[in-house]
Amino acid sequence: MKTIFNNLHQCHDSSMELFEGSIVPAFEKPQRAELIRQRINEVHLGPIVNASEFPLRFATAVHDLRMVAFIENAYTEWEQLGRTGGAIPYSFLARGCCCNAVPVSLDGRLAYYTFDVATPVTRTSWQAVKGSVDTALTAAKLLHDGERAAFALCRPPGHHAGTDYYGGYCFLNNAAIAVNAIVEEGSQRVAVLDIDYHHGNGTQEIFYRRDDVLFVSIHADPTHEFPFFSGHADEAGASDGEGFNLNFPLPAGTGWKVWSEALGNALSRIAAYGPDVLVVSLGVDTYHGDPISHFLLGQEDFIRLGKRIASLQRPTLFVMEGGYAVDELGINVVNVLTGYEGA
Amino acid sequence: MKTIFNNLHQCHDSSMELFEGSIVPAFEKPQRAELIRQRINEVHLGPIVNASEFPLRFATAVHDLRMVAFIENAYTEWEQLGRTGGAIPYSFLARGCCCNAVPVSLDGRLAYYTFDVATPVTRTSWQAVKGSVDTALTAAKLLHDGERAAFALCRPPGHHAGTDYYGGYCFLNNAAIAVNAIVEEGSQRVAVLDIDYHHGNGTQEIFYRRDDVLFVSIHADPTHEFPFFSGHADEAGASDGEGFNLNFPLPAGTGWKVWSEALGNALSRIAAYGPDVLVVSLGVDTYHGDPISHFLLGQEDFIRLGKRIASLQRPTLFVMEGGYAVDELGINVVNVLTGYEGA
Repeated sequence: MKTIFNNLHQCHDSSMELFEGSIVPAFEKPQRAELIRQRINEVHLGPIVNASEFPLRFATAVHDLRMVAFIENAYTEWEQLGRTGGAIPYSFLARGCCCNAVPVSLDGRLAYYTFDVATPVTRTSWQAVKGSVDTALTAAKLLHDGERAAFALCRPPGHHAGTDYYGGYCFLNNAAIAVNAIVEEGSQRVAVLDIDYHHGNGTQEIFYRRDDVLFVSIHADPTHEFPFFSGHADEAGASDGEGFNLNFPLPAGTGWKVWSEALGNALSRIAAYGPDVLVVSLGVDTYHGDPISHFLLGQEDFIRLGKRIASLQRPTLFVMEGGYAVDELGINVVNVLTGYEGA
Repeated sequence: MKTIFNNLHQCHDSSMELFEGSIVPAFEKPQRAELIRQRINEVHLGPIVNASEFPLRFATAVHDLRMVAFIENAYTEWEQLGRTGGAIPYSFLARGCCCNAVPVSLDGRLAYYTFDVATPVTRTSWQAVKGSVDTALTAAKLLHDGERAAFALCRPPGHHAGTDYYGGYCFLNNAAIAVNAIVEEGSQRVAVLDIDYHHGNGTQEIFYRRDDVLFVSIHADPTHEFPFFSGHADEAGASDGEGFNLNFPLPAGTGWKVWSEALGNALSRIAAYGPDVLVVSLGVDTYHGDPISHFLLGQEDFIRLGKRIASLQRPTLFVMEGGYAVDELGINVVNVLTGYEGA
């Protein structure tokens, strides 16, 4: 399997984040992508290909143009105000408030567009954000050109970014942008299987009213885990998309047995849908050693998981999402891919 | 004029806050109330009376009982998780997400109930929060017992706290709780005049559908200033409350001339309403020297302002809200009160 990589990922390095009341080193850091690349080389998974550049219209086909422009330009405005560090909000939307009017000031737009303080726009973040989208689009093009599978080693991740909001380390939704491009290229049906520990709230929202994209997610129960307000089992899609959104929220402490049962149900639904292409939002923060997550998958489980995904026998695009146990990150991610390849 | 004071305010001291991307000393700090008290003594404004305790039902008549209990108990849960510092969220509600289900985990409930990271629940915050409510209620009782005016030296402030959310340094809405108590005691009509630099989004929301409380606010245009999503001129109330909410958003750089024109319009509307009681949400962050605000009122303007409020000739309850130019805080606040008294 080919891996698509983009050196520009290093342009996003937020160094610190606010987590559980403390300022801590950022969990989502450049080392993540580098270690995965290193492991890919070690096990000779396949060629590592540089990402090509794609027009921004692929991103704005999925995201609000104003938000995309905001992410591109926020740091310049931030700096003009004499501020340092990454651009983050100090306030957020309160429930019940009017949210139709986009505020004008920078702090107001930050409050409008992002939902946490863990996703700062730094001086060079945009290069990484755009580069991450290009990584996913390059991989999608490989599939279009006949590859059976490809791995988009995206960084920053994307699945928490919605039509007009970003957060959870994600700016633009790489997977969703790739899915939309695949549909535009002529696929009738695309399935997204999101196996990150956290619910892919952005991807769900983007496709919630569409029946040409089936979104299936296995994740930590949002009543206990980020993103907290999305990912419940009763969120089944709306309008044309009703029945095309399927969530499997699982409790803390979930290990392979329960997780793989959910995977079996997810794969059955995907098989019944019969997608032209499968896009996997690949997070490995389901690993028992992950510092911010509470599932108990082991390294070998990731191989099994890859095999199970391969059993669908669909052209498959893996898009990198989360996973923060850095020392084992390369092993866990590549185990999924070798599991898939060896199936 | 009597001032109601509560030593318990010192129990809330969050020390640091995240503002414009940096961790800075908290703007809302115990010294604020102490300096105002000191100035009251210096100018012999009148007796300083200790707050009495009131049943919590006065607060839960306005706020969601679960949120009140949450504020009371959040720190204990926070500590049980081994965390230090004040309890703050690391994530917030994204637009368009389901917000009917209150999450179960502490981080989820923090994300649900508060809209910023500047309003931490510390080990002893609850004592100060409850004490601040008692301060407002004690002052309201003085009016009920025949005083012409009273000053509730509340801290923490309250006007950003809504029915079921808190933030902006505010936990429970002291002014709104007092207003509701005044109505319950038999007043047919109460007017709230909110002159804090920031829109009193919580107070507006609490009374938005009621015609027995007129809410009038003069504040920085929310398209540029916190709270960003509330305080526009077209927010006029709803249902029974339609026409009983009046916002005067003003641009950065507003000085006395423009501000006092808005005040004149606000007072005209209040006079036409003919309230039994006037409650003034008194913020002096309209001062030109305020570190986080952008209006240009001078010290003498606060005397004029007090006189103008007195011209309504209504029993008047002043409830302390914001104001962060600490060195001049006592002077500015007491100028309003002496202006009122001397009118």
